[in-house]
This record gives sequence, structure tokens and C-alpha cells, in this order.
Amino acid sequence: MSVDDRGFQYGDGVFETMRAYGGRVFARDAHLDRLARSADAIGLEHGLARDDLLERVQDTLAANDLADAYVKLSITRGSQPGTVTPRPDVDPTVVVYAKPLPRGGLDGERAFDGPAVLQTSKTRKPPANALPPGAKTHNYLNSILARNELVADADEALLRDQAGRVAEGATSNVFWVNDDGLHTPAADLDLLPGITRSFVLDLARERGGVPVNTGEYGLEAVRNADECFLTNSTWEVRPVATVDGIDVGGGPVTDLLSRLFDRLVEERHYGGIDGSD
Amino acid sequence: MSVDDRGFQYGDGVFETMRAYGGRVFARDAHLDRLARSADAIGLEHGLARDDLLERVQDTLAANDLADAYVKLSITRGSQPGTVTPRPDVDPTVVVYAKPLPRGGLDGERAFDGPAVLQTSKTRKPPANALPPGAKTHNYLNSILARNELVADADEALLRDQAGRVAEGATSNVFWVNDDGLHTPAADLDLLPGITRSFVLDLARERGGVPVNTGEYGLEAVRNADECFLTNSTWEVRPVATVDGIDVGGGPVTDLLSRLFDRLVEERHYGGIDGSD
Repeated sequence: MSVDDRGFQYGDGVFETMRAYGGRVFARDAHLDRLARSADAIGLEHGLARDDLLERVQDTLAANDLADAYVKLSITRGSQPGTVTPRPDVDPTVVVYAKPLPRGGLDGERAFDGPAVLQTSKTRKPPANALPPGAKTHNYLNSILARNELVADADEALLRDQAGRVAEGATSNVFWVNDDGLHTPAADLDLLPGITRSFVLDLARERGGVPVNTGEYGLEAVRNADECFLTNSTWEVRPVATVDGIDVGGGPVTDLLSRLFDRLVEERHYGGIDGSD
Repeated sequence: MSVDDRGFQYGDGVFETMRAYGGRVFARDAHLDRLARSADAIGLEHGLARDDLLERVQDTLAANDLADAYVKLSITRGSQPGTVTPRPDVDPTVVVYAKPLPRGGLDGERAFDGPAVLQTSKTRKPPANALPPGAKTHNYLNSILARNELVADADEALLRDQAGRVAEGATSNVFWVNDDGLHTPAADLDLLPGITRSFVLDLARERGGVPVNTGEYGLEAVRNADECFLTNSTWEVRPVATVDGIDVGGGPVTDLLSRLFDRLVEERHYGGIDGSD
């Protein structure tokens, strides 16, 4: 990586964190779609075709003999010395970063150590007029500052938006369950609506028979919930033990959705069913 | 630069942009002070002594035979694979980047091509509860997004804060002059109060006899001004030709302050006067 690279100088790049199961990336089209939206949001015309990007990911997995893996695909605006203003003549830098993860699906192991301990941060999400919330970029200090606040055994920060509404975890989306069913902050708030979030919502509606609610919520909704869990591509569905020291825990709905997600992965990636996603 | 470096992965680093005149960094103590404040703001305990950092800068200048130069000093949190949460055991990455600039001072040439063309951006500054405004970090997308909006011959973006008050340029502080004297947004707004800004304010008060005002201003104040200029370490004092297409221009106060700055540099760096600053 050149020190001239705008990825290093300015965090001027976009990325996706993905998970490969049985040698293939889960929800690859959704990830490549979002990568394209992230690039649009920061005006990065990298000129790389989707097939090219996918091939680089698959080649990296193959070269490292990885079937079950964490994969991070980054594209930066490359080197443009001497100018903060992006130039249109982009020679992008592409980085594919892969490392082993346990098998997923019904016989898999979790890629996390026990339930999360969630702590609300003073650090708030930046508003959309300052930084596009739906873009996954290498500007990650907001999440880092939130994580820096964690005390005791807390391992994930819960961020609110400027109006004080619950938004998301530093690297995860947050869900909770009460008598009205499943809840998560609406995708049009200042948050990054994850791909696992989207799958979990679909599974709850279509296979779980769980009522789904999205909207604007305060912290009390999470703290008073019967169950709480986090999602991201690596963790899939991760129960939350406590929120700001208040016991919430996982529970039957969390377990159901986690099992439904595992089954989907099993069907698509380990079961011989056609793998298109 | 390792792709594992948090500077690349997350923009998790701090920097200073400085100018060397006659082989020595201008206002080195002010720059090192601010670098320390930036590191504090993101919780980066790099463990590097000021003398060590200064020596690396001077060694880089000497090794490249540079006397009049642009110098960027960056410190990142180094490599900590597999965790967004910063770990306390930091092995920092230090990058010193130097390139030639013209001589400064009274006989110097400007390090910019003519007056700036300023355009107000829709992109606003993030509030302090999302990202610390006074920290110079490798999270630079907010400025890049503002610069991306520039049309026609505009070459600097003017950003407002969340309340619509004038804050700063993408890489500069903004000043303007009217019948009441010199004006610039107050340092406690969501902006980065530059070191050149501070010198210019002192020079206006102490050597220029120019009344100085800092406060909260709307765009009209800048657009209706008699003169307007920008400051940063590279540009020093740069007149503004137009603001959102409205002729403003430099003028006698801009010229005076630019000359006073040049004289200060001449005294400190080229004139044989003791160089402590």
C-alpha cells in the first residue's frame, strides 16, 4: 500500500465485509450492489466490473485455500498526490483481505465469543448532510470513538442519531423483541442497513411468522425489551446479554431467527441446493 | 504501508501539515501541540516523544535536501488485525511526507495559483458529538464530499455547521473584512482552528492595527464582505476572488496581513534572527 494512496491519506475508499461459506460469498449480489452505492455516495468511479471484483474475491479465497472465511473487499481512489479534491482519472486500489472463519450453517460454530454486552455511547451518528450513513467507507472514526467509550466487559457500542433515536451498533445493526414482535430502527435513519439485517427481517416475516416493526425508537425500547440481538455479516445473529447494565438477553425469537439464518446458509452453501443468491 | 494498518483500514490516525522555510518547520511547537490534542481526541497513545517526532521531520528534510518544503507528519494506531475496538498496545506507524515548495518570506513565491474561487457546499460539518472538529485525522471524507460538489472554476468549498453558520473551507480557514474590521468564525464552532489562522489573528491585532472579530456568522456576511481570504499552512494568506459567484476579492487588509505574515517568516527563518517559535 503506497503512503500516497487516498485510502491511507484520507480514508477515501469503500468496502464490504462478507462471509464465504463452503467457498462462495454469501449474498454476493447484495454486497456488490451496496459497494456500488457506497462508491456512488463518495463520487468514486472506479471502473471495475462486478465480475472482475467477484473474481478477485474468489481467486483470493482459492489462493489461500479458504472455504469458510471472512472477506473484506476495499476499493480506494488510489494515488492522487497533492490534491484533496478528487480527480476523475482514478487508478483504483483494490484490496481483498481474507481470513479463516468456522463453518457456518446448521453444523457451524459461532464467529463470536458469547453474547454481546452493549453500552450506549455519548458519540452520536453523524447526520446525512455531513457523511452519507448508508455508505461503507474507510472513514471509521465515529465507530472507533464509540468503541473507545466502552467500559468493563462491554464489547459493542450502541449509537443514537442526532435526535437521540437508537440507530445502530458500531459495527452491527440492533434488533429487539417485545410483545409486539421484532423491532429495529428504520433503514432511512442515519444508519447503515446491513445485509444480514435485511435477511433477518425477511426470515422473520416469511419463515418465522414474527411480526416485524421498523421505526423510530428511544433507548428505553431496547433496555425494556424481552430479547435483544445484533447482526452483521460475521456475527450473523448475536444475542445481547445486557444493555447499559440491564439484563435483556436473547430468547426464543432470537434463537428462532438465528436457526432460520443457519438453515438458509445450509441450504444455499452446504446443501447442494442451487447457490444463486 | 501494511494493508493491516489502521490508518488504511479506518483512517485511524492523526496528522499535521506544516511548512518548512529555510530548513526549519514554521510554528513547530504549535503543530506538535495540536498533533497531541488530535491524538488525545481519538484516544491514541502513541508513546512518541516530541523531540523524536521533530527529529524525524528534520531528518526527512535533510535526507531529501529540502529547505523550503511541504511536510505532512502522520501517526496511525498501527496494525491491530481483527478488531475495530482500539487496543492499548499501540505500535504506531509514523509517516513523514515532504515535497518542495517555493521559498517563503518577503522574497518568496506563492504556493497557490491565483486567488481562490469559493463555493458554499451542501455538505455540512459533522457535529462535535459525532467527530471531534478540532482533531486533524485521516477521516477526511467530509472535506472530500464538499470538494466533490465544486463546479466550474471553484477550487475551495465553504462549509457551514449544522445550524447553518459559516465554519471553514475544506482545507482552510476563512476570513473576511468589512467596515468593522476582520472577521472569522469563532474557534469553538465545529471547525478546525488553524495555526495560520491564529498567527493571522495575532498579526492583525498586534502589528496591523486591524480590529478583530470572531463569532457566529451567516453566509451573507462573507458574500457581502469587502475582502475575503483563506488561510492554511501551505497557502499562508490566499485572497478569494468570488464567493458563490459574487465578486469579493482581496484588498488592502488582505494584502497587509499577507505582507505581515511574510515578514514574520522572513524574520524567523531567513533573517538570521533566533528561530525559536
